[in-house]
Amino acid sequence: MENFSQWYHNILEEASIIDSRYPIKGMSVWLPKGFKLRKHIIEPLKKLLDKDHEEVLFPLLVPEDELAKEGIHVKGFEDEVYWVTHGGQKELNKKLAIRPTSETAMYPMFSLWVRSHIDLPMKFYQVVNTFRYETKHTRPLIRVREITTFKEAHTVHATKEGADEQVKEAIKIYKEFFDTLAIPYLLSKRPIWDKFPGADYTMAFDTLMPDGKTLQIGTVHNLGQTFAKTFDITYETAESTHDYVYQTCYGLSDRVIASVIGIHGDEKGLRLPPQIAPNQVTIIPIIFKKGGEEVLNKCEEIKSSLESSNIRTSMDNRDIRPGKKFYEWELNGSPIRIELGPRDLENNKAVIVRRDNLEKIEIDLESDYVSKIEEIFQEISENMKNQVWEKMNDSIISTESLNNVNELIKDEKVVSFTWCGDEECGKVIEEITEIDILGTQSEDSDYCKDIDGSKCVHCGKEGKYTALMAKTY
Amino acid sequence: MENFSQWYHNILEEASIIDSRYPIKGMSVWLPKGFKLRKHIIEPLKKLLDKDHEEVLFPLLVPEDELAKEGIHVKGFEDEVYWVTHGGQKELNKKLAIRPTSETAMYPMFSLWVRSHIDLPMKFYQVVNTFRYETKHTRPLIRVREITTFKEAHTVHATKEGADEQVKEAIKIYKEFFDTLAIPYLLSKRPIWDKFPGADYTMAFDTLMPDGKTLQIGTVHNLGQTFAKTFDITYETAESTHDYVYQTCYGLSDRVIASVIGIHGDEKGLRLPPQIAPNQVTIIPIIFKKGGEEVLNKCEEIKSSLESSNIRTSMDNRDIRPGKKFYEWELNGSPIRIELGPRDLENNKAVIVRRDNLEKIEIDLESDYVSKIEEIFQEISENMKNQVWEKMNDSIISTESLNNVNELIKDEKVVSFTWCGDEECGKVIEEITEIDILGTQSEDSDYCKDIDGSKCVHCGKEGKYTALMAKTY
Repeated sequence: MENFSQWYHNILEEASIIDSRYPIKGMSVWLPKGFKLRKHIIEPLKKLLDKDHEEVLFPLLVPEDELAKEGIHVKGFEDEVYWVTHGGQKELNKKLAIRPTSETAMYPMFSLWVRSHIDLPMKFYQVVNTFRYETKHTRPLIRVREITTFKEAHTVHATKEGADEQVKEAIKIYKEFFDTLAIPYLLSKRPIWDKFPGADYTMAFDTLMPDGKTLQIGTVHNLGQTFAKTFDITYETAESTHDYVYQTCYGLSDRVIASVIGIHGDEKGLRLPPQIAPNQVTIIPIIFKKGGEEVLNKCEEIKSSLESSNIRTSMDNRDIRPGKKFYEWELNGSPIRIELGPRDLENNKAVIVRRDNLEKIEIDLESDYVSKIEEIFQEISENMKNQVWEKMNDSIISTESLNNVNELIKDEKVVSFTWCGDEECGKVIEEITEIDILGTQSEDSDYCKDIDGSKCVHCGKEGKYTALMAKTY
Repeated sequence: MENFSQWYHNILEEASIIDSRYPIKGMSVWLPKGFKLRKHIIEPLKKLLDKDHEEVLFPLLVPEDELAKEGIHVKGFEDEVYWVTHGGQKELNKKLAIRPTSETAMYPMFSLWVRSHIDLPMKFYQVVNTFRYETKHTRPLIRVREITTFKEAHTVHATKEGADEQVKEAIKIYKEFFDTLAIPYLLSKRPIWDKFPGADYTMAFDTLMPDGKTLQIGTVHNLGQTFAKTFDITYETAESTHDYVYQTCYGLSDRVIASVIGIHGDEKGLRLPPQIAPNQVTIIPIIFKKGGEEVLNKCEEIKSSLESSNIRTSMDNRDIRPGKKFYEWELNGSPIRIELGPRDLENNKAVIVRRDNLEKIEIDLESDYVSKIEEIFQEISENMKNQVWEKMNDSIISTESLNNVNELIKDEKVVSFTWCGDEECGKVIEEITEIDILGTQSEDSDYCKDIDGSKCVHCGKEGKYTALMAKTY
């Protein structure tokens, strides 16, 4: 996309997603249409988590001493935390942090809740706002000071294996969620200098935005026993001994919504996969002076049929030109538009226009058109998914030398390379290329090269990993 | 109730609603069960509002200068606002308030959004957390520092009549909502010294808690043009002139949830109206060694039938004594329990136990028992509603003299009296009785006496209003 940044800014405004004129930098208002989109994106995630997680809600504020307990963790956030120092006119005895994330709010309570091995595992999640005092240039939904849609899950396990298994399980849940959104992803193990502060290791999902930069859209952290030791979360084992628990946490944010908007959108506006579109079908009656009422009635009838099959349907019978309606609904990303005029009615037909590829399909209104539309939903989802995955996969290129990396990256590429895995060497690679290492690939990754005999691109030592690098948001 | 305060504290803990051991006073954690109850209480309200309001989401933080703009308003909140003064290690150039309510966050944006009379009316709502630095004794869900469930609606109108009409409409919506919860209410126009800071007038819903104190559970404010003038919210009229808009706002909080818990609960625990109960039906198989599987199968079958009619059903097949299960589900307030043992199965019967009155009803499993259960839901709702309304109405007593007010109030009463309506006189009445005037009754109120010829209880001047007074939370 020629000027993604400008396009992105415009679409948020034109499709009435958010209003970023709020008088604090990096904080925006969710407008009604944006709020609905947000809701329909959160819903399938909640459904996935509700299977075996419990939803809770923790306070926004964290006492200074709790936040400070886990040294490595607080160091990772100390430049970004907003501090509440006054209540009314009075200075507080103890400063309160606005949560940048909720480990330090939750884990003192976990310490009270966890008693015995039979309580475990525990799996919780919450959807809340969190805050980071960003000093870099902010960008709506991508780099913000109020993250309005932070979905964070926290789990507690009796064994290391339990936590390891949960990391896999969380990855599976996120993959399923991203598939619902038709968002392609790269899964990496973050380099040690880029893991979550306090975690043993971090698995991260990145997607590729149209400007060639990758966007982190989800992370899964294996916390080991670090926080358990800090917050004294112990349990009684079956043998009546006491041990520290093992923990994981995993999160997603507004960035997921940014990726849906950015990756699927085109010059006409949003394109939304049917499962998350607030309006799945939009019916537009084409009305002339004569026979207008019959057309409207038929449109109402179609609307009722679709709604009784739980298809979210709007009918746009405003008194404006159909062309203006087409324009608006394409902008809003409604996956299917149905047009029905007097001649269509005579023939008992209607015209479906797919938003994903603008294809027109005639449907017979005497047939089971509801099932037909459900089929088309499937096709749209598949088509959108294939398109974006293909595009991303085409953008991954392998290199054996650092010399041409900046040239490769210019063409909106993610670069895969062999790495020895040493921290020192990795940091040098990032420094000389000024490009970030996303992380290392596991052997079952699509992006993992056969590294037998390959040498590290920088030091020439024996290659240990296939790693990915990219310009990042 | 003998010791309501103790009972309330216990039930929150025993029914796992919230955990108030969070290390900041007045801020609590919603536990999974409590979170579900909260969700099912919010849902019917959202449904009512979604008919013609749009859901939005505004930032949590408000710049100091916006908060300070409306002088009367800020004065009402200045002792209660939490202030964010630092981002990371740096002091912020401009202090940020954590919203105590969102007028000053929203109205600068409304000023950008409202252009022409054709944009009006606009009706928005959001469900968010808000903060008050309470210095009084806090009490979970009732007097808190983080209000976690603040539903605030804000509307904008072209005319005074539009705003007046919306106040009536909001009252209608809240009445319908409270009816769904089977919560009785007193509707009053708050005395002028107790209205929302910045409003023309405030209509308030109070309910009577078991300890005889009233609890404000909802307010509707007619803001007139005060905020419009402060935040410069104008529109172009049909005649191309410009005028300030008229506004209303109305809100509810966690206190609604407190009232459901407090008013319906009994010595066995929660009692929940079916419409908002997370578990509407709980099936408890009574299993002996022989025939256990058949009983379980039948229970599963009943569960499926109920769920296919969208009845939220749990089956408790834990390996513990039935008595313990009965105890727990009564504590959790599940409206209907179904018990099924081998002998019941033989006779193709089951026993229903109603939580509201503990009545046992035998049902024939060959009949349309799903409809029967839906009927019982209706009866439970009606019964609960009648019970609590009757109790509240029996607690309202009329007096013609202030002398015996404190005596009357001791017996858990709300006192109705004739008042001249003068502010000075009203404040004296509050001072000498140490009891709050809730407000005045409109003529169509159930609690409005015929005041023809009645004299003000304090000054003896001609009576103008029937007013209510009570000890309040």
